[in-house]
Amino acid sequence: MRVLGVDPGLTRCGVAVVDGGTGRSVRFVDVGVVRTPAELDLAKRLLLVADGVEEWLDRHRPQVVAIERVFSQNNVSTVIGTAQAAGVVALSAARRGLPVAFHTPSEMKTAITGSGRADKAQVTLMVTRLLGLAEPPRPADAADALGLAICHLWRSPMQSRLAEARSRAAELGRAHQARLAAAARTTAPGTAGKVRAATLAERERNRKGTTR
Amino acid sequence: MRVLGVDPGLTRCGVAVVDGGTGRSVRFVDVGVVRTPAELDLAKRLLLVADGVEEWLDRHRPQVVAIERVFSQNNVSTVIGTAQAAGVVALSAARRGLPVAFHTPSEMKTAITGSGRADKAQVTLMVTRLLGLAEPPRPADAADALGLAICHLWRSPMQSRLAEARSRAAELGRAHQARLAAAARTTAPGTAGKVRAATLAERERNRKGTTR
Repeated sequence: MRVLGVDPGLTRCGVAVVDGGTGRSVRFVDVGVVRTPAELDLAKRLLLVADGVEEWLDRHRPQVVAIERVFSQNNVSTVIGTAQAAGVVALSAARRGLPVAFHTPSEMKTAITGSGRADKAQVTLMVTRLLGLAEPPRPADAADALGLAICHLWRSPMQSRLAEARSRAAELGRAHQARLAAAARTTAPGTAGKVRAATLAERERNRKGTTR
Repeated sequence: MRVLGVDPGLTRCGVAVVDGGTGRSVRFVDVGVVRTPAELDLAKRLLLVADGVEEWLDRHRPQVVAIERVFSQNNVSTVIGTAQAAGVVALSAARRGLPVAFHTPSEMKTAITGSGRADKAQVTLMVTRLLGLAEPPRPADAADALGLAICHLWRSPMQSRLAEARSRAAELGRAHQARLAAAARTTAPGTAGKVRAATLAERERNRKGTTR
């Protein structure tokens, strides 16, 4: 699977392409930064970000776009512009029918370094090692974009399994409810208590089964 | 001039078209809301907002797009989504080469009601009166979008005059610097002090002139 990782920003938007292989193997494809001049007005800067990312989508044809999730707790003076840059990148991907995933900075750091509070130097070091690069990617936004792409490759199978498990659990729950309803319909009023007791016992067994 | 006013939002994005005439006359053209379902993922919601606004741009061909400026001090839980909706609207306008203006909520309220702290009911009432509508526009996002379009029509001539005055002042300043440089070049070393004194006197006159 080929991922475009994006560390969104108006001044510097980090972009990186990484291919995932079997297991945890990852292969570096490309990395760069889309820049926009601060003196341009906001709409024109967003257009440059969108055009820049579209160019990366054209050139590398990723199958999924992973973007760093912006929090309102981040640096207040830049959070709006960063959110808007992330928004236009997500839009460009959605226009092409590509799935878009968001990962928080701490999810990325945990995936790459083992700690959600790792600093930029640590992320850069680990990204350089994981991808076997001759020298560390610069600037930090580029390293973050690479980290985000790797994070997506490693987290998404886990997330898919989780989503699958959740949907199977919901399905089992629905089937169980349907059996209960059927039992209640076919049971004479006098035996309802027994059915209820049996149901509780079954529930208890299920509960133990899932927490085993 | 025809303005598309936009009150950005992911769940409800207010859109309104108003024509400006001579002086402060304004004419209602259309108003509506672009909605996106909360259960869709962010990228798809942004795509729906962008497509919805593009449809309004196609239908009404405004000459300028006025968007409510999002602040990070706003409701923290929705500010990111609102900023991203504003971003994709600005992008759609920029892609068509349309100028994009941002006005703060308090600038809009001041323009429409005379008070920057007016509530939604007051804005709705004044918008209804100013445009001579038979009934108040609903929901509030629609009224805000109309208010924003009117605010732009009223503020933009003032802003243009201000920008013009600033650029004229800058030009005068450059011309003055050029004269000074020329004087310094043609003056013998011994008379440099006199030129400097004359320059200071001229500066003082200019300063008084601009603050008159």
